[in-house]
Amino acid sequence: MPAISQRGEACPPSPIRKLVPYSDQAKKRGIQVYHLNIGQPDIETPSNVMDKIRNTDIKVVEYSHSAGILSYRKKLVEYYSRVGVTVTPEEMIVTTGGSEGILFALLTCLNPGDEIIIPEPFYANYNGFAVAAGVVVKPIESYIENGFSLPPISAFEEAISPRTKAIMICNPNNPTGYLYSREELELLRDIVKKHDLYLFSDEVYREFCYDGKNHYSVMNLEGIDQNVVLLDSISKRYSACGVRIGVMISRNKTVMATAMKFAQARLSPPTFGQIAGEEAINTPESYLTNVLKEYLRRRNIVVESINKMEGCSCPLPGGAFYAVARLPIDDSDKFCQWLLEDFNHQGQTVMLAPATGFYATPGRGKDEVRISYVLKVDDLIHAMKCLEEGLKAYPGRKIGRI
Amino acid sequence: MPAISQRGEACPPSPIRKLVPYSDQAKKRGIQVYHLNIGQPDIETPSNVMDKIRNTDIKVVEYSHSAGILSYRKKLVEYYSRVGVTVTPEEMIVTTGGSEGILFALLTCLNPGDEIIIPEPFYANYNGFAVAAGVVVKPIESYIENGFSLPPISAFEEAISPRTKAIMICNPNNPTGYLYSREELELLRDIVKKHDLYLFSDEVYREFCYDGKNHYSVMNLEGIDQNVVLLDSISKRYSACGVRIGVMISRNKTVMATAMKFAQARLSPPTFGQIAGEEAINTPESYLTNVLKEYLRRRNIVVESINKMEGCSCPLPGGAFYAVARLPIDDSDKFCQWLLEDFNHQGQTVMLAPATGFYATPGRGKDEVRISYVLKVDDLIHAMKCLEEGLKAYPGRKIGRI
Repeated sequence: MPAISQRGEACPPSPIRKLVPYSDQAKKRGIQVYHLNIGQPDIETPSNVMDKIRNTDIKVVEYSHSAGILSYRKKLVEYYSRVGVTVTPEEMIVTTGGSEGILFALLTCLNPGDEIIIPEPFYANYNGFAVAAGVVVKPIESYIENGFSLPPISAFEEAISPRTKAIMICNPNNPTGYLYSREELELLRDIVKKHDLYLFSDEVYREFCYDGKNHYSVMNLEGIDQNVVLLDSISKRYSACGVRIGVMISRNKTVMATAMKFAQARLSPPTFGQIAGEEAINTPESYLTNVLKEYLRRRNIVVESINKMEGCSCPLPGGAFYAVARLPIDDSDKFCQWLLEDFNHQGQTVMLAPATGFYATPGRGKDEVRISYVLKVDDLIHAMKCLEEGLKAYPGRKIGRI
Repeated sequence: MPAISQRGEACPPSPIRKLVPYSDQAKKRGIQVYHLNIGQPDIETPSNVMDKIRNTDIKVVEYSHSAGILSYRKKLVEYYSRVGVTVTPEEMIVTTGGSEGILFALLTCLNPGDEIIIPEPFYANYNGFAVAAGVVVKPIESYIENGFSLPPISAFEEAISPRTKAIMICNPNNPTGYLYSREELELLRDIVKKHDLYLFSDEVYREFCYDGKNHYSVMNLEGIDQNVVLLDSISKRYSACGVRIGVMISRNKTVMATAMKFAQARLSPPTFGQIAGEEAINTPESYLTNVLKEYLRRRNIVVESINKMEGCSCPLPGGAFYAVARLPIDDSDKFCQWLLEDFNHQGQTVMLAPATGFYATPGRGKDEVRISYVLKVDDLIHAMKCLEEGLKAYPGRKIGRI
């Protein structure tokens, strides 16, 4: 039997999905599981989008342009203009989810062995793409104590080596929900410019900002047009995760021409997803306004509930629909598995993502979990009750610490 | 401005798509272009598939299981059983087109720098995935003179080095249309077993076999269950290229568990495509029978037309919907571009794929083109007339050779 590859062995499992077999087993035992482990909203996809799919009159479901259907890219120009970003259809490649854009960006801009700096905790699936591209993730630490704000520029300076080619951020952040300010982004701009690095920015949660805060896109940072690559997706914006449509955007023509070679190799992004994406931009403004109100209620319930639990703390996230909470536990992997395997409260339990998988530094995140507040308020209340009772019953509970 | 990656520079452009700007310009000049460059059939997607999409009553377009929707994988078991292949849902990962399966297989089974042997000419996009995975393609030559049959095993033996980890075939073949016999596959089996290599087999054209010949799947080769990885797609079978649905299949549990890590990183394949794929398996048998009859007529017209042209030759392909023809030309890249840029016959021209892009050995394919017979018979007749007249007028025509 031939060996598998070393990178295959090295690729870490997804912290979001690796406990799925345990939740499946819990369900088989009749336990109701609240899924707060994955960023899969229960919000309905806009009805105009579903109607568009239902009214499709395509005869042959053909390959589209490798950069995406032109009418969709033109419509995206309209969307970005609405959020204050000026781009052209030529500066875009429609991708299969935001995921594919991350892979294209890494393959295009970094050589195998090159380094990319990412503040940790970070979206765990970046690891899979880094492994695929042979790229080394250099984490720099952000801390729950200050709500996971941008690490000081000195930390970036220290992490930069001759192999550093890029810095990557996710804004608003997954998993922390932290919303980077314009000032923080301008500090990043300066260091990117100084060292002539790429700046990759994952802005799929752009619309999800709370407490009157506004999102500032890296596309509007002055003086680094040739360095910036924007990664985006319609999955969360329109609760359409399954359509698998994202976009990679850059004003750097060489980057886009090179990424196009990888895009042409895989022929095209999914046609039905692009039809959905084009129609989604016509969704009435009220849809997002209502969704935002709903997420705000959910965020408040989760954060308030956790901060009331003994020994727990959770900073108030400014965006996205995630929060990272610190719990009085020995090991978040064990705890999250235990919640599914050995615990239930009145026939219910909760599935969380251990934060360890969002850190690249070994040992970090052992007393933290990521919570996706993607369920209805009533369900969230039940889920928080399960967490509270679970923490009381968990044999690995730590006593007397914050 | 930061540099792009060396692999980005090294990635060859797709021979199927690199001339698209020239065809766009020809169309702008009012020229009708017959597209025989790309395997995009004009055949209608089955009506039951389109009806299924139109009748979808999904409320939230969610991520699916990373290995694909279970009901679809179960349905695939039924499909494979029908074509004589026994598999289970656990031995499958539904992929975003056949393309993603190729990438997963390379990432999973080969280290960067490892070698994969592929008989050339081969499907050009394998190059893009090989570059992405940092894998070295070792071509071994097949020849138009014997219809591109499997190279002798001695050629494989000579090509095998300590870095060789896999052999890849496409059967029936893209670009040559050659259908490997069971005997040829058994020779491959023996060498795969002897050197404990992986055998990747791209069988997306399985149903397209002519002249009473039958397809034999590598999944039925005895004794190499742990070595075989099957790559498949519904794109061609059901003329549904745009849905982007394929599947990677192996009975090797370690391979599948490892590929799942890459699959989980990208979350899931497209939902609408999976709905289409599941329904496609219910398509009446008459659909494929009729499609096959149609392709047979097309093949015969193309091959007979070319063999009648002075100085041209084209072997009769046993499968798929491609043919590689030898033409009396100096350079297939120049000729294919010239057909679009400088030629028309009564306001029409034809777009072909230069065969150079399907060879890894420099210099090969310069007098060959790949023809996809994906248009209606009447259109093909016009396209062949354009080719014939084009060859007469082409300044780089070679005289007096076969």
